Amino acid sequence: MSSLQQLHTIPTKEELEATYAVVKNYVHNTPVLSSSSINELLDCQLFFKCENFQKIGAFKMRGGISAASRLSEEERQKGLATHSSGNHAQAIAYSAKMYGVPAYIVMPSNAPKIKKQAVEGYGANIIECAPTMEAREQTLIEVVKQTGATFIHSYNNYNVIAGQSTSAQEFIDKYPDLDIMMTPIGGGGLISGTALAVHYFGNTMQMIGAEPIEADDAYRSFKSGILQGNETTNTIADGLRTPLRDKTFGIIRKHVDDILRVTEESIVQAMRLIWERMKIIIEPSCAVPLAAVMLNKERFAGKKIGIILSGGNVDLGKLPF
Amino acid sequence: MSSLQQLHTIPTKEELEATYAVVKNYVHNTPVLSSSSINELLDCQLFFKCENFQKIGAFKMRGGISAASRLSEEERQKGLATHSSGNHAQAIAYSAKMYGVPAYIVMPSNAPKIKKQAVEGYGANIIECAPTMEAREQTLIEVVKQTGATFIHSYNNYNVIAGQSTSAQEFIDKYPDLDIMMTPIGGGGLISGTALAVHYFGNTMQMIGAEPIEADDAYRSFKSGILQGNETTNTIADGLRTPLRDKTFGIIRKHVDDILRVTEESIVQAMRLIWERMKIIIEPSCAVPLAAVMLNKERFAGKKIGIILSGGNVDLGKLPF
Repeated sequence: MSSLQQLHTIPTKEELEATYAVVKNYVHNTPVLSSSSINELLDCQLFFKCENFQKIGAFKMRGGISAASRLSEEERQKGLATHSSGNHAQAIAYSAKMYGVPAYIVMPSNAPKIKKQAVEGYGANIIECAPTMEAREQTLIEVVKQTGATFIHSYNNYNVIAGQSTSAQEFIDKYPDLDIMMTPIGGGGLISGTALAVHYFGNTMQMIGAEPIEADDAYRSFKSGILQGNETTNTIADGLRTPLRDKTFGIIRKHVDDILRVTEESIVQAMRLIWERMKIIIEPSCAVPLAAVMLNKERFAGKKIGIILSGGNVDLGKLPF
Repeated sequence: MSSLQQLHTIPTKEELEATYAVVKNYVHNTPVLSSSSINELLDCQLFFKCENFQKIGAFKMRGGISAASRLSEEERQKGLATHSSGNHAQAIAYSAKMYGVPAYIVMPSNAPKIKKQAVEGYGANIIECAPTMEAREQTLIEVVKQTGATFIHSYNNYNVIAGQSTSAQEFIDKYPDLDIMMTPIGGGGLISGTALAVHYFGNTMQMIGAEPIEADDAYRSFKSGILQGNETTNTIADGLRTPLRDKTFGIIRKHVDDILRVTEESIVQAMRLIWERMKIIIEPSCAVPLAAVMLNKERFAGKKIGIILSGGNVDLGKLPF
């Protein structure tokens, strides 16, 4: 492990393979499920890679371990730091725990109590700040200065992106003949890693992203070739409200074949379909690729489609049904 | 298949094996899942057999196929009949569809629309009746008289019980060294089949049932040795409101080691724990064995425990969270 170096450019095929060789020791090789009734309904063959069953309940665990593994022993001992109110906070906290090193998580004061408890449960140090992006970034800079910990961005980081590729590596290894691979797009960490895996290991597989119309920065950036921000983030898919940044956009431009946008109504329908037919719990963000298939039935008819279900951390007290 | 005969006595080991040889061709060999965080919390090793992922979303599919397979070709062509407002209705409808024969399902007029639609979706004939057990039984007798179809009781039937044993057969085959096997108890079909499988294939494995205090006919019958009805059925575990009958009680007396009772509060807690930690959707009835483990931590400490999760058909609009 100590032979791995930090990645400063788009990971190569060999770097993705080396990443998997480490990450696999810390994460679940999550199962792939299918539903004959959903297949019948949509006239295609869908395969769902269940990262909702991953440690901490989301694929983010993979990126956390990958980033931690690529620090030098000296760097790692000083700890991992990040700002996050969501799954990345838990991923960094748990990754630090697995390596036996400290974690410093900057969280906005209005973050849900249950998220803070989860992070504390992994033994991480929580530093509260005002609930603005500016305060988060400023607080993080101070934490890093004081502790010497390494900041791990939740997606705009090639080490993290390499980690996120490992779900697709497992998926393609088991289902090499998929016609299409799909993920949702938030900040772009998952789709970047997945697109690289599809590029290196996926033969003729197509890579398609899916995004809510209400947070469609990736769609507009992809179509225009110029990185653009979100105009609204008024979507139930709370994991997808973050914007692309330079590293993820660079990979998406190069290795994603298309991006489809979906309505809020279709996200809730797709989420409910998965809950009811497959009996598994997924976050609204996960439902976005299936929503895209539902809205574009003809395009996907007869195809073998792999969808990465990104996570299952939902507040059961606030369901949209 | 046509060589199988209807069972009129408690199935033998060979009869269970013969049942599995047929049933396995029509059902999923459902996965077994674990949760390290639940194991840590309860200080034991729990293995969950996921019949919520079974066809029609419940173990009842196994009993339906088993019963259908043990009819003569002539009997089968006349059809399968039952009365049910729940999973058994769907199981019989789907089993009939798989054999290409008619199904006649007597359903109370107040059965949820979604259940009727599911049964109709499998091509079954629905015969509505007044919402009383008397009306259901009377209507069924008429249907059988008119059609010549065979009545398949949802649990007090050795063919059905043999089918329900197949989940435990798969479970024990994969995890032969469990210390304890657990199921919930409603009418007793699942626990009867499971107890027989444990008896024939389970080495020194113990068989423990779990039941809501609010519908504890099995507990009182088991302790007293005399078949007793329910005094209340005021439990959220709607699948467990049905009472034992002679065939299931006979097997339970002989092959079950203990029955534990649980509170309503513990059922909701256990259900929520499985939803939140395992990200799978289970019916309240399924949570009853885990509730029993939670309420009896010392008794189960350090043990390897197999729990059959019986089904996942819940109304997402009416959750207890």
